[in-house]
Amino acid sequence: MSSNTSDDEPKYPCRTSVDSPIVSIQGVKGSFHHITGELLFGPGITYLERDTFDQVFDDCASGRAQYALVAIENSIAGSLLQNYDLLAKNDLHIIGEALLRIEHHLIAHPGASLDSIKQVWSHPMAINQSQAFLDQLGIEVIEKRDTAGAVKYIKDEGLKDMAAIASDRSAELYGMNILRPNIETDPHNYTRFLLMSRHQSIETAEDLSYKTTLHLSVLEEPGSLAKLLQLIADKEINMTMIESRPQLGKPWQYDFFIDLQVRIDDPDNDAFIDEIRERTLFLEILGSYPCLGYLKT
Amino acid sequence: MSSNTSDDEPKYPCRTSVDSPIVSIQGVKGSFHHITGELLFGPGITYLERDTFDQVFDDCASGRAQYALVAIENSIAGSLLQNYDLLAKNDLHIIGEALLRIEHHLIAHPGASLDSIKQVWSHPMAINQSQAFLDQLGIEVIEKRDTAGAVKYIKDEGLKDMAAIASDRSAELYGMNILRPNIETDPHNYTRFLLMSRHQSIETAEDLSYKTTLHLSVLEEPGSLAKLLQLIADKEINMTMIESRPQLGKPWQYDFFIDLQVRIDDPDNDAFIDEIRERTLFLEILGSYPCLGYLKT
Repeated sequence: MSSNTSDDEPKYPCRTSVDSPIVSIQGVKGSFHHITGELLFGPGITYLERDTFDQVFDDCASGRAQYALVAIENSIAGSLLQNYDLLAKNDLHIIGEALLRIEHHLIAHPGASLDSIKQVWSHPMAINQSQAFLDQLGIEVIEKRDTAGAVKYIKDEGLKDMAAIASDRSAELYGMNILRPNIETDPHNYTRFLLMSRHQSIETAEDLSYKTTLHLSVLEEPGSLAKLLQLIADKEINMTMIESRPQLGKPWQYDFFIDLQVRIDDPDNDAFIDEIRERTLFLEILGSYPCLGYLKT
Repeated sequence: MSSNTSDDEPKYPCRTSVDSPIVSIQGVKGSFHHITGELLFGPGITYLERDTFDQVFDDCASGRAQYALVAIENSIAGSLLQNYDLLAKNDLHIIGEALLRIEHHLIAHPGASLDSIKQVWSHPMAINQSQAFLDQLGIEVIEKRDTAGAVKYIKDEGLKDMAAIASDRSAELYGMNILRPNIETDPHNYTRFLLMSRHQSIETAEDLSYKTTLHLSVLEEPGSLAKLLQLIADKEINMTMIESRPQLGKPWQYDFFIDLQVRIDDPDNDAFIDEIRERTLFLEILGSYPCLGYLKT
């Protein structure tokens, strides 16, 4: 059933019992979403390569894909706020979290040299994170929707004087050459991905730590957020993240997304959830899921 | 000295004692930044029209402009996270806050009809906030850096079959026509702007409410954010906003930006600031400033 159950095959952090699993991702193969999928599941997965995150969430909500893999935070750029909105809007559960070390490379046709490059194409975030190198290079930079998509386009169109900033995997997949490796300014560059599903679960090792993501709005009274956070602190539960998002139609009122280092499907925690619920106008548990660790290509 | 001191002229929420005041804004005249400047200061201001927020902050930090006017939050899209980073990086003070009602109009050449339009150009946020109208219209949409800049370009280049989504002021300034007014999906659409300066202050009415923006990192101990927020709540000070931003080079550690409804330059509050400081690793007061109210064209 699963694509990686044999002892001879490499072990991957998660397994699916779905027969022909489909994972929806933003970007084409070679994108950081695709790399994360490969490192999590191994081979045997079909990827739906989408232009937008809306399409990715919709694939999973509608059943075209069993899983969606979505970047939620970068350690330099911060949260992808739009994906918190999509998380709230769609009826999906978070079933796993993974962290990928982001490495940016300058990629061009085999045989091309740095002198021959007239333009560099990439996603705005990859451009921003390679700015010191690009400033030194001093050539025109063009923003594109997708890192690996830029590599694929430059390859397909035979654009010998163009380069892209993208992953090593995209160079490999499209038969292109790494002209300059690791051009990222700050090496402490990680992206946190969420694996989501509507109905499917995954099998993982049993000793993993868990996180729980809550989506809530606090009571309309002074100090209500402080009281909620104090309740969490009193239980000695670590809060790893808090993010606010505007409530639609209610300017300057906010929902919160809160990540806690706790496994909430443990019945010991029912009373805790009840206490949280008493301190909120609205509470949704978006998932209680294993942390699948740091991944590296 | 000031451009609006005479009793015969309309009253504006703030006055400057600078002789020939220069305000740096992102976008061209007719942009929401420019409209906010006009509604705050009235006539007699020179605007530096910039492509990027980096340039706007740099204008003000280097002294090319006495003031910078920068969007920090939209009531639908949420915080402009990049501007929190620029706020932290540059040695500027927040000296005022204003809220602008955002209205999007479809703008084209005089005489153009909806049937003749082949493409709509605008900033991604304006496109997103007019999506229901655009879906109905069903023609190609192109993302541009600036709303009013799209109007100006379509005018200058004589592009009779193009339309832009932008403000009524931009139609007026560039001699263009509003083809469809108020195409925004959600009318509860406001943008919060910060007025910043390095050395200059402004004169305002004396009965305004104040806000204070803090930039801080909490102590590295469990529940430290909860304790900090509780300290604020115990003083019955209302927190209107909390935003987290990643610390550079320290993945998954965050700085916080916190807005409090309090005037901090009052000596009564010195003890409060000392208590906050004891609960933080790092504390910077980015400004204690008057709320200049809701503006409307």
